[in-house]
Amino acid sequence: MTVVSQNARVLESYLAGRWQPGKAEGKLLADPSNGDPVAVIDASGIDLGEALAYGRATGGAALRKMTYHERALMLKSLAQHLMEKKEVFYPESFKTGATRKDSWIDIEGGIGTLFAYSSKARREMPNTRVFVEGPVEPLSRDKTFSAQHVLTALTGIAVHINAFNFPVWGMLEKIAPALIAGMPCLVKPASQTAYLTELVVRHIQASGLVPEGALQLLCGSAGDLMDHLTGQDAVTFTGSAATGQMLRRHPVIVENSIRFTMEADSLNAAVLGPDATPDTPEFDLFVKEVGREITVKAGQKCTAVRRIIVPRGLVGPVQEALALRLKKTVVGDPRDEAVTMGALASGAQKAEVLERIAELTSGAEIVAGGGEADGLDGQASAGAFLQPTLLYCDKPAASEAVHSVEAFGPVATLMPYDDIGAAIDLTHRGKGSLVASVFTNDPNVAEEAVLGMAPFHGRIMIGNRASAKTSTGHGSPLPMLVHGGPGRAGGGEELGGLRSVKHYMQRTAVQGTPHLLGAVTDRWVDGAPGLEDTKHPFRKSLADLKIGDRWKTGSRTVTLEDIEHFATFTGDTFYAHMDADAASRNPFFGGRVAHGYLIVSFAAGLFVDPDEGPVLANYGVDNLRFLTPVNAGDTLQVALTAKEISPRITADYGEVCWDCLVSNQNGDPVAQYDVLTLVAKEWPAGSSAAV
Amino acid sequence: MTVVSQNARVLESYLAGRWQPGKAEGKLLADPSNGDPVAVIDASGIDLGEALAYGRATGGAALRKMTYHERALMLKSLAQHLMEKKEVFYPESFKTGATRKDSWIDIEGGIGTLFAYSSKARREMPNTRVFVEGPVEPLSRDKTFSAQHVLTALTGIAVHINAFNFPVWGMLEKIAPALIAGMPCLVKPASQTAYLTELVVRHIQASGLVPEGALQLLCGSAGDLMDHLTGQDAVTFTGSAATGQMLRRHPVIVENSIRFTMEADSLNAAVLGPDATPDTPEFDLFVKEVGREITVKAGQKCTAVRRIIVPRGLVGPVQEALALRLKKTVVGDPRDEAVTMGALASGAQKAEVLERIAELTSGAEIVAGGGEADGLDGQASAGAFLQPTLLYCDKPAASEAVHSVEAFGPVATLMPYDDIGAAIDLTHRGKGSLVASVFTNDPNVAEEAVLGMAPFHGRIMIGNRASAKTSTGHGSPLPMLVHGGPGRAGGGEELGGLRSVKHYMQRTAVQGTPHLLGAVTDRWVDGAPGLEDTKHPFRKSLADLKIGDRWKTGSRTVTLEDIEHFATFTGDTFYAHMDADAASRNPFFGGRVAHGYLIVSFAAGLFVDPDEGPVLANYGVDNLRFLTPVNAGDTLQVALTAKEISPRITADYGEVCWDCLVSNQNGDPVAQYDVLTLVAKEWPAGSSAAV
Repeated sequence: MTVVSQNARVLESYLAGRWQPGKAEGKLLADPSNGDPVAVIDASGIDLGEALAYGRATGGAALRKMTYHERALMLKSLAQHLMEKKEVFYPESFKTGATRKDSWIDIEGGIGTLFAYSSKARREMPNTRVFVEGPVEPLSRDKTFSAQHVLTALTGIAVHINAFNFPVWGMLEKIAPALIAGMPCLVKPASQTAYLTELVVRHIQASGLVPEGALQLLCGSAGDLMDHLTGQDAVTFTGSAATGQMLRRHPVIVENSIRFTMEADSLNAAVLGPDATPDTPEFDLFVKEVGREITVKAGQKCTAVRRIIVPRGLVGPVQEALALRLKKTVVGDPRDEAVTMGALASGAQKAEVLERIAELTSGAEIVAGGGEADGLDGQASAGAFLQPTLLYCDKPAASEAVHSVEAFGPVATLMPYDDIGAAIDLTHRGKGSLVASVFTNDPNVAEEAVLGMAPFHGRIMIGNRASAKTSTGHGSPLPMLVHGGPGRAGGGEELGGLRSVKHYMQRTAVQGTPHLLGAVTDRWVDGAPGLEDTKHPFRKSLADLKIGDRWKTGSRTVTLEDIEHFATFTGDTFYAHMDADAASRNPFFGGRVAHGYLIVSFAAGLFVDPDEGPVLANYGVDNLRFLTPVNAGDTLQVALTAKEISPRITADYGEVCWDCLVSNQNGDPVAQYDVLTLVAKEWPAGSSAAV
Repeated sequence: MTVVSQNARVLESYLAGRWQPGKAEGKLLADPSNGDPVAVIDASGIDLGEALAYGRATGGAALRKMTYHERALMLKSLAQHLMEKKEVFYPESFKTGATRKDSWIDIEGGIGTLFAYSSKARREMPNTRVFVEGPVEPLSRDKTFSAQHVLTALTGIAVHINAFNFPVWGMLEKIAPALIAGMPCLVKPASQTAYLTELVVRHIQASGLVPEGALQLLCGSAGDLMDHLTGQDAVTFTGSAATGQMLRRHPVIVENSIRFTMEADSLNAAVLGPDATPDTPEFDLFVKEVGREITVKAGQKCTAVRRIIVPRGLVGPVQEALALRLKKTVVGDPRDEAVTMGALASGAQKAEVLERIAELTSGAEIVAGGGEADGLDGQASAGAFLQPTLLYCDKPAASEAVHSVEAFGPVATLMPYDDIGAAIDLTHRGKGSLVASVFTNDPNVAEEAVLGMAPFHGRIMIGNRASAKTSTGHGSPLPMLVHGGPGRAGGGEELGGLRSVKHYMQRTAVQGTPHLLGAVTDRWVDGAPGLEDTKHPFRKSLADLKIGDRWKTGSRTVTLEDIEHFATFTGDTFYAHMDADAASRNPFFGGRVAHGYLIVSFAAGLFVDPDEGPVLANYGVDNLRFLTPVNAGDTLQVALTAKEISPRITADYGEVCWDCLVSNQNGDPVAQYDVLTLVAKEWPAGSSAAV
């Protein structure tokens, strides 16, 4: 038992609605740069079953009452709040060994993820509580039985067991999609750097921006946490494969089919294309990127390049350029702005990486670095500092270690390939990775390498001269892109925009009549009756308009003169409209037909109510299909039905999507499409209570 | 060891390119109706590691060479072939205890699934080998760095471990999505009914329609199969929770993060809405459906209703009506057309179900059936026949057994609820189910029940009078709808259209310049350069047209006369086009603007090449967005770029999707959309080799 230092903060857990210290004295966490005591961590004696139940009941209920847009705006406020407080977090981050640049990735990268999820959710999800996925699936010809997939929030709690390397981003990138989905979270940061996570959660709780119970924090051991999980909970894990596998086969996980997202070891590769010779920009970009990957966060990044795969003939130049670059690395106190690489997270971590380097030397030789770097007092043993280390493996097809031993520090192995197929095979030897990159300016190389590597990777970055300035780099997971890899990397998928939100939701196929499906999804479903009314729907603000409100227009006969006039006026004299002989040879028309754009223009002429009113704009059209050709003499009529209504929270209008069905005199569908409009909440403005 | 009967067929496995018998004498499988020997099954001594490697190499390589449409057409041919042979399969199916109606679900339902996947894949996937998912994600403002998610087939093998109840459908519903994805399959049917699966596979192999190695069959024990799996393989399991959980925690599965899709126990519920009193059609539909669910396949259906949840006041009428219905069930020889319920799959299965009924009586009483039914010789012990059995549980909130014990036979438990919230809670007590149904004609009940039950269910059917004739029923999984449920039901997802195809693919976020992304995805990506040419792209057949071919049109100035003329001509006199004062009050326009439909009509006038040629039709428009208002005096110009080209295999044309960007004189985007056309493979027809 470590004696508590006077300078060490006692970390608490925020569980079951209160900050709770552990019952035992706890473990002392030290600053890896200078050995200073930072914090003491312990969670013994805390009732974790109570915390889980509290989160599900209190946090879950509060979140499920909110719409997707309300949850998204909550994330935005939270992000703004944390951004204002960011300078509070940097000094705490330095205590983890991270430089300012490293900390930026963690702190501002994490906050940026909240912003990104907030705007993505508001753009891509409706302002409702049920997410409708994919099109209606008609199950009967007469449209009396159809189906719609919907997603609803799981009723349990999301448990996030995080790694030590990104104490802020690691928490925020996981709670963002869960909270959008409507699931409360319990975050268990890795002990070593939990003080930074705890500090951020204290600021989140104090802000009052997140509903009570929606975010809980466990500082210390997970204890019997897993024993209390149910089939409606979800677990994410980032960390070592050994721990992850132990959790994955936990009886409670297995017996309840609990969703388990794992991100574990990954021997990420960077491949230099055969075209990227030393005289090309791609060569320089490659060396720069690989050098950065080795040293950022002292290499403690799940996505860091571990395997550097280059054409055999370029081993010399690459090794030379990389060694030169690494030599310039200034290792030292992360608070010192001249320092370019800080400490590892702990002395234990340093020892671990040195062990892994030793294992790697079974198949590779050290060509740069390889040992401890001097500490702040000039002695190698004083801090968790390592030299940036490059190994070289001459026979990578024959070595197992270089493809399987992950030294989680500033360490990578250079290896040659003979042709691009062999390079692809080498990437596969990692047995599944989070990310790979290929540096090439040759589209054929890009195509072959990316498609060859894809089944083994969650993300692949192509680096070249044209994206040199804008590329976000090999090592950066992005909120809109999948993060996670198959096989050794854990098989999980995080981030990726809405994809990760869906991880916290149950997908259900709902079958029934269109009318009842509409009641469930709060949408008008094709086949359901419309609500016909003498008031034109364009006269209705969101306060009046109802899903299913329908307007059946008068009719208009399309004449040959209309077709010819439209052709002359617009310039669209396509032969199918103008030349009876040529049109008769067309396999689809068999005669002169009206322009598709004429049909939609006439349709608007039929359905638009011209006077100033609550319908503010038609901002687009989706899914327009021309279903039956229109010949001269055909008569068009339109049924316009309010399909989906999504009032905005932060504006005095919202989106209304209308189903527009144009029919001919025989009742055949001529065209069907979604008309997208913006409609005022009230009309005239201020006339009634806001929607 | 069972002595092999003279009448028993010796089942073989089709592995590593040849039909292989097991090395041991094997287990005798008997007809459960009459005890006749049917087949002998054994797989001992077969090298399963060789079979897996063979499938990955031979079958995988052959499938990955084919496009999605080629694979889809292969499934269609296979479905047609099996449909022609179907009468060969029925007699073999009777030997499993299944009646003709039961067998129809298995045989023709399975073949129908192949047809459905074939047409779904051709409609929703391009005719390529890489599946592009979701929109391009721009990662830089200047469009020099973007991302695109792609899906590629896993390079391993799909191992399907199937249940005994649907020996044909169970195989076909799983191989259909895997083969579309491009993954070879190894099917291991449950031993008891493997003779039917084996017979179907013999016909598949003999047809030569499936590439060698793409479909293998293992008749007998799985032996050391799992030990040879890798992280690029995928496993699906349907069967008992105990076996499924054992597989899920298998070290090879856990250590390699192998995708594992499980469908296990499920206590599916049918809920009678409070509005569905005995005088309503919903009451009768409910009784009919529940009665059918109990007796079809002698209740050996994963989706069968096990819990009948009805308003307390309706327990009497429901029990009476159900008991009456069950009484009419004719149990006996499945070959006899008068028989409405056949045998269970085996004597062991009968014994097992009787044991489960005994367990259920801890919380419920038997109110109909409950024991063995007489066999063909008039004795209860002679065949695997059971009486359709109804139990009643008066206090379902207090009983554990009725929500957790799955009697996999003609058995269900009736239970009362007091209000709809309590009914929802009871469905949750199943801890995750494949399907639930609710019978109601009240939209409010439908909404509350479906949304309340959704997080615990993979599918929910709403039954009412309007869908009585067209409903596919509570128990039918459909190819286009997700099949699988959370928690106890295994947490897997099968079917659901393309969703299940993606289970066999790796999702990869690819980042790079639009130009290089386009090379990888075989699409033009926004931001990539266009290929400008003096030949109008409408003059190019698919033989000439290239991805990225671009036509920059001349320009046209929109006059106020144009706007007024368009308004008068089409009838669309919306105030924003016609009334300067009113338009100036509009929050988006600030003045009179051109109609959106005028913009797209003029755009077509600019980009269309009028003469007869290879472009046959414009069949639709997608993703049209109006980006900048157009005022009188603005000048429009269009850039039309060939974005995606998908030649059809079975027609002399294909789909071409064009990016249409309309800009104004300042270079601001005015509108952007996808123009969907059909283009001939050759022009004039027959002028060159087919694409």
